[in-house]
Amino acid sequence: MYTYNPWNKFYKEPFGAVCNRESMTIRFTASGNVAVKLIMHRDFGARHEFELERISEDTFETTVRFDHGRALYFYHFEILEASDWGSRRLYYSASPMGGEGHVTEDLNQVADFQLTVFDGNDETPDWYRNSVFYQIFPDRFFNGNLDGRINSPKPNSFLYAQTSDDPYYVKDPSGEIARWDFYGGNLRGIIAKIPYLKELGVNALYLNPIFLSDSNHRYDTVDYLRIDPMLGTEEDFRHLISELHDNDMHIILDGVFSHVGDDSIYFNRFGKFGEHEGAAQNQSSPYYEWFKFSNWPSDYKSWWGFKNMPELDKDNPSFQDFIYGAKDSVLSKWESFNIDGWRLDVADELPDDFIRGIRANLTAENNQKILIGEVWEDASNKVAYGQRRNYALGDALQGVMNYPLRDLIINYVIGNLKACDVAYQLMTLRENYPKSVFYGNLNNIGTHDSERIITVVGEANMDLAIGLMFVMPGVPTIYYGDEAGLTGRKDPENRKYFPWNDIDNRFYTLYHYWAHERLSSEALKNGEFSIGYIDNCLVVLRHTAEETTLFIANPEENALTISPEKITMLRTQEFTSCLSDLDDITIPAKSSCFHKIS
Amino acid sequence: MYTYNPWNKFYKEPFGAVCNRESMTIRFTASGNVAVKLIMHRDFGARHEFELERISEDTFETTVRFDHGRALYFYHFEILEASDWGSRRLYYSASPMGGEGHVTEDLNQVADFQLTVFDGNDETPDWYRNSVFYQIFPDRFFNGNLDGRINSPKPNSFLYAQTSDDPYYVKDPSGEIARWDFYGGNLRGIIAKIPYLKELGVNALYLNPIFLSDSNHRYDTVDYLRIDPMLGTEEDFRHLISELHDNDMHIILDGVFSHVGDDSIYFNRFGKFGEHEGAAQNQSSPYYEWFKFSNWPSDYKSWWGFKNMPELDKDNPSFQDFIYGAKDSVLSKWESFNIDGWRLDVADELPDDFIRGIRANLTAENNQKILIGEVWEDASNKVAYGQRRNYALGDALQGVMNYPLRDLIINYVIGNLKACDVAYQLMTLRENYPKSVFYGNLNNIGTHDSERIITVVGEANMDLAIGLMFVMPGVPTIYYGDEAGLTGRKDPENRKYFPWNDIDNRFYTLYHYWAHERLSSEALKNGEFSIGYIDNCLVVLRHTAEETTLFIANPEENALTISPEKITMLRTQEFTSCLSDLDDITIPAKSSCFHKIS
Repeated sequence: MYTYNPWNKFYKEPFGAVCNRESMTIRFTASGNVAVKLIMHRDFGARHEFELERISEDTFETTVRFDHGRALYFYHFEILEASDWGSRRLYYSASPMGGEGHVTEDLNQVADFQLTVFDGNDETPDWYRNSVFYQIFPDRFFNGNLDGRINSPKPNSFLYAQTSDDPYYVKDPSGEIARWDFYGGNLRGIIAKIPYLKELGVNALYLNPIFLSDSNHRYDTVDYLRIDPMLGTEEDFRHLISELHDNDMHIILDGVFSHVGDDSIYFNRFGKFGEHEGAAQNQSSPYYEWFKFSNWPSDYKSWWGFKNMPELDKDNPSFQDFIYGAKDSVLSKWESFNIDGWRLDVADELPDDFIRGIRANLTAENNQKILIGEVWEDASNKVAYGQRRNYALGDALQGVMNYPLRDLIINYVIGNLKACDVAYQLMTLRENYPKSVFYGNLNNIGTHDSERIITVVGEANMDLAIGLMFVMPGVPTIYYGDEAGLTGRKDPENRKYFPWNDIDNRFYTLYHYWAHERLSSEALKNGEFSIGYIDNCLVVLRHTAEETTLFIANPEENALTISPEKITMLRTQEFTSCLSDLDDITIPAKSSCFHKIS
Repeated sequence: MYTYNPWNKFYKEPFGAVCNRESMTIRFTASGNVAVKLIMHRDFGARHEFELERISEDTFETTVRFDHGRALYFYHFEILEASDWGSRRLYYSASPMGGEGHVTEDLNQVADFQLTVFDGNDETPDWYRNSVFYQIFPDRFFNGNLDGRINSPKPNSFLYAQTSDDPYYVKDPSGEIARWDFYGGNLRGIIAKIPYLKELGVNALYLNPIFLSDSNHRYDTVDYLRIDPMLGTEEDFRHLISELHDNDMHIILDGVFSHVGDDSIYFNRFGKFGEHEGAAQNQSSPYYEWFKFSNWPSDYKSWWGFKNMPELDKDNPSFQDFIYGAKDSVLSKWESFNIDGWRLDVADELPDDFIRGIRANLTAENNQKILIGEVWEDASNKVAYGQRRNYALGDALQGVMNYPLRDLIINYVIGNLKACDVAYQLMTLRENYPKSVFYGNLNNIGTHDSERIITVVGEANMDLAIGLMFVMPGVPTIYYGDEAGLTGRKDPENRKYFPWNDIDNRFYTLYHYWAHERLSSEALKNGEFSIGYIDNCLVVLRHTAEETTLFIANPEENALTISPEKITMLRTQEFTSCLSDLDDITIPAKSSCFHKIS
């Protein structure tokens, strides 16, 4: 019998990701006349062997020190088993589910265990980890002008006649956007709703882009240094930030540095900003080198081939200076407004060095700033454009938008995944990420890029979906209007105007409950995390020295009664022992129980 | 030699259309041993012969009294010519151009002369003939709210962000309108611009529909008894009318009685007005019989097959009562606001009896009201849906929208038609229409249903096009914004918002000049009309006992000098003799001369 389980303290110490310059101790259990080697390679690197030392009858051990910088490592074991006829070589492979592995004779069948080695101790600021975020798509939240006037409507755009109108893309017959559509939400509207947000239990905002753009989503920047006048003035923005800070709230902005609008002052495809200005008008333009023309001015690299979003050359020093390097860079300008951080749009499209450049400039002098990124998958091991990405190994992103968590929550509550599978996948995420990142991810169950959660899971499953987001490590984020009952499939339906006169109290109550539970529970915000399951119930324990919380989800159509002592926890730690003291618990159908058990 | 020319006083008296119960004298010139018969049939009726009496060496004559009511009659001549070998039968046929005819031996080659016999002396009110009209598409003229607020925006519609935006139809991929688009012009806006209109030289308004509708054009009526709240209130409407009347101005409305919107209170296809109301919801609905269902409720007759415009059964007595018969009919309601008349939309779709019903109720007690209709062709002889239409023979329409004139003006100024052809065609129109109708037509060079005149003829030809409209019999109508320089092809481009901050002075000056010439000239408003040509110059004489005006158009690229005495006038009347006294006249390129010559 051969055994190795990286989730078990006996076999691997420390758990999960390892900090660079620290050591990892690995144990392997085997009986009989065998030799065991740890076979490890750095990502895309050479194969290294480490002979394990037999430290007892059936236990082998080795300690590896990592001092070659942050990276992913991959490993498995080689077992040399003495037999009657020479010796036999076996392999110990990782399992697809994670946790304990298994023996195989075929090298081609071997899957490696992942080991994340990260740089330094990249703690996120306390305020961030202690936040309940609220994502606002600014055009759709609230128009703060008392007379309902819409600021500076853009030429050749449409305004919705009523805020209760459904969003609609005005496209020409070829499918291109013909006119952009606006409801007229603005910064003053956000200021006006700060009391509402506080009451809901929100203490941090993530705003979709606010700089001058042609579209309503503003991912097609026209000018990085100017607030879109439809949203308000710099004075309004300053006012918003001071109001937020006065209320112990924080704010991060959406940084869209991968591409700009073709109608921007940098590209100026249509000559709107002067006939000799911009990369598409003049090859001597200071912006010319920011873009990649194959045939000037008509053929150029653009985001996903959309000609209206020319791609920026993030390796270009002049562009880097403009965004973060220069004294009057984009980052400096908005830093001077005292914002609390950035969310980087399409981080996959940003080179590691570019992200690091932003990070260095952002937190060099102030470690209270936060940098997170848009990554849709497990960011610890993502390969984007043929390159392993080092988003989350320290010195770059401090967290990513946690779409994998959203997928797990949705598939669990609608019955596509069983509790056991969800527990294993969450454990794998926890293992792969540096702890600060796992706790620094921006958890969500819906954003401007996804279906509304109510539409995906149905009203009956909302209790569970919301609860699961709030009890998990990572910073919970409410997508504006989810708490009011907004529904809709993807863009544009997921971008309705906030129904201020028609807030659905059922959902508001759930979000209000969980936001306040979260804010008041140190265990939920910063506690250790342990995950398990019993039957189809997912079990989440969160734990600090003073407080332990137990969350048990029941996605079934009927109530279930479970014995806590029978719960399978995937990593048994001291604080899980508390389960054995508990009486049987009945969890209502499509609901959860949430207890503070110490 | 045989000759007959209905445009020559010697050959036919009276000129043109003949009033019922009056007589027509016809002369025919022929020499030698011949007999001449007038062969005439009433439209679709039997053939009648009238033997002409020889009253001199070469002149034959007969007088026919018409006492069988209004109708079209058609006639030619039969000539029995004695010869050496029996007698020979010849025919005298009308020419395609009009005027003098020609002899043919082949009966199949004979074209009839048209004779319009009309009922009574259907004089239009003085105010109407003396008007310069202005057509307003209400959503696009002016928003009279001081704060720029748009009244009562409709659910799921779009508002233009700026009034300078180009109009755009928001269509779904199948080509259906997905959302209606509005600029927010309203009745208060019209009131506010009365001084502007007066200064321009306008003294009557024709408004496109103003009743509650879903669309911006409002040809899809929802409720005939309600002003669209986007346009204002009944109070606003009352105010508009009293302001106009106080300024000696008049107003007519657009009556859209052929069809309604599917989303109307009468049809109620979507149940918006109650689930048991309306023809599409309930076969016991009082409105059920107004429509023609082939398979209730899904299949029904609709305007040009557009399902969103169900056709009304204009022969249905209950519908007739509703529109004009009942005490509280649509006509009565708006009559109580003291409007000055109606323009009937798509008159082709309205049965003669329906139009007569409207007319009888409109002018029975007040002969200062006017009823005109939308007919795109020569309304004197139009066949619509296999039926000859009696629009303009008295007791029905008093005029139609003069699109044939528009076509002639356009084709002349852009060089597609020569002056001679235009003169002949205008003379034919003059001949076919009862005089009151010829003078009662609403002349235009552009409407909401056509391209903008500047776009069709080009800026250089505007001087001529405007002048031609204003010197012709019929009531000139300025389509809002033509005077400001608005351009555009057909709908929606021809429905831009009025450019209040960017009025093109070149066109304003032309319209202003002609409107004031017209208002101050009895000859232009009510004078006799004579048309002629010299080279490619079209010549228009207008004449009263006190005043004669001469207009000569030169569409050529170079100036022309002509001798007035050499002008060919198509019908020589006493007042044309004045031409022989005039010196040579030079007309600049692409321009006209306009003189009061007595």
